[in-house]
Amino acid sequence: MEKFSDVLTKEQILAATEEVLRRFGIAKTSVIDVANVLNVSHGTIYRHFKSKAELLEGATKKWLDEKIIEPLTDVCHNTTLDGPEHLKTYIRTLIELKQHYACEDEELFKMYAKVTDEATDLIHKHISEVTDQICEIITRGGIKSEDPLQLAHAIFHATTRFHHPAHAYEWRSPMIHNEFLDVWALIEKGNLYENPR
Amino acid sequence: MEKFSDVLTKEQILAATEEVLRRFGIAKTSVIDVANVLNVSHGTIYRHFKSKAELLEGATKKWLDEKIIEPLTDVCHNTTLDGPEHLKTYIRTLIELKQHYACEDEELFKMYAKVTDEATDLIHKHISEVTDQICEIITRGGIKSEDPLQLAHAIFHATTRFHHPAHAYEWRSPMIHNEFLDVWALIEKGNLYENPR
Repeated sequence: MEKFSDVLTKEQILAATEEVLRRFGIAKTSVIDVANVLNVSHGTIYRHFKSKAELLEGATKKWLDEKIIEPLTDVCHNTTLDGPEHLKTYIRTLIELKQHYACEDEELFKMYAKVTDEATDLIHKHISEVTDQICEIITRGGIKSEDPLQLAHAIFHATTRFHHPAHAYEWRSPMIHNEFLDVWALIEKGNLYENPR
Repeated sequence: MEKFSDVLTKEQILAATEEVLRRFGIAKTSVIDVANVLNVSHGTIYRHFKSKAELLEGATKKWLDEKIIEPLTDVCHNTTLDGPEHLKTYIRTLIELKQHYACEDEELFKMYAKVTDEATDLIHKHISEVTDQICEIITRGGIKSEDPLQLAHAIFHATTRFHHPAHAYEWRSPMIHNEFLDVWALIEKGNLYENPR
C-alpha cells in the first residue's frame, strides 16, 4: 500500500498538498486527504510535517517562493532597469502578482492570507526577502538615502494597501491602479512643503 | 412588559447594543439580548432595525462617529495648527485613536473590523469624512497640489497599514510608531530622484 513512503520527499508532499487545497479549500483539506493522493498512510506525512498547520505553512512557503519571489528576483536582477524606474517596476510587479493570484489561484491565496494573519516567522522571512531586494535596487540605482534598508521598509509599508492580502477585497475596484499611481507619485517626488504636484 | 416600546429611540437601542456587544462579543450577541436589556420584545427592535446585520452597522456608525470622527473634527478645526504639521497631527491622531481602541475597546473594534471587511456603504462614507477633512487641511494650509482631494486619498492610502483594522495584529510591534514616522518622512519630503534622506 505505502508504495512511495520510503522515497517520499517533502517536495512531493507539498505538491500533493497544493493539489488537495485547490480541490477542497483550506477548511476541508486534511492530512488524510494528502496521504490519500500519495497513496501512503497519514503517519508517513506526519514524519515530515507535525501538524496540518505545519503542512499549510510549508505549502505557503513553496507557493510564495515560486509565484512571488522567483519573478521578483528576475526584476531585481534586470540590468536594463535603473534607479526610481527600476524601483517602480519592482513594486508594480509585486502588486500585479498578488492581485493576479488573488483572482486566479483563489484557494492558495486564501491560505497565504490566513498564514499572514497568524503573523508567522515564515511571513516575516518572506517580507525580509522583498525588502532586501528593494534595498538592493535602491543601493545599486544610486538612489540617495542615509539608510537604504529603512527606506526600503518605508516604501514597502507605504504601498501595503496594494499588496497585503487583507486588502484583496479592495483590489476589485476599477480605481485601484490609479490609486497606486497616486501613492507612487507621493513616494517618488512628494513634497508637502514646496513643489506643486 | 413593554415599558419603553412606545418611546424607544434608535439611539437607545444602539446604546443597549453596545452594552451587549461589550459583554458577549459579536458572535454571541443576538437581537433578543438587546431586547432583554431594554425590557421590550424583539419585535420592537425589528421595527427600527431589519436584521442583526443592520443593528451592527448602526452600532458601528455610532461608534465611528463618537470615537473617531468627533476627535478628528477637533483636530481638523484646530486653528493653532497649519500646513504639513497640521496634516501630520491629523493623521497621527487618526492612527492613535484606532490603535488605542483596538486594545481598549476590543469587542467594538472587532465589530468595526468585521463591518469594514464587508466593505459597506457605511465604511465608504466614514472614509469620505476623513479624506474630506484631510483635503480641508491641505487647502487651508496652503499645501500646493493640483488636486487636493486626490492628494488626500493618496496620503490616506499610503498610511493604510497604520489605521486600517486588518493591520491591528501588527500594531503590537514596538517598532510601529517609528515605522509610521519613516512613512511620513517619505510622504512629507520623499524624493527618490535627488535629495539625500
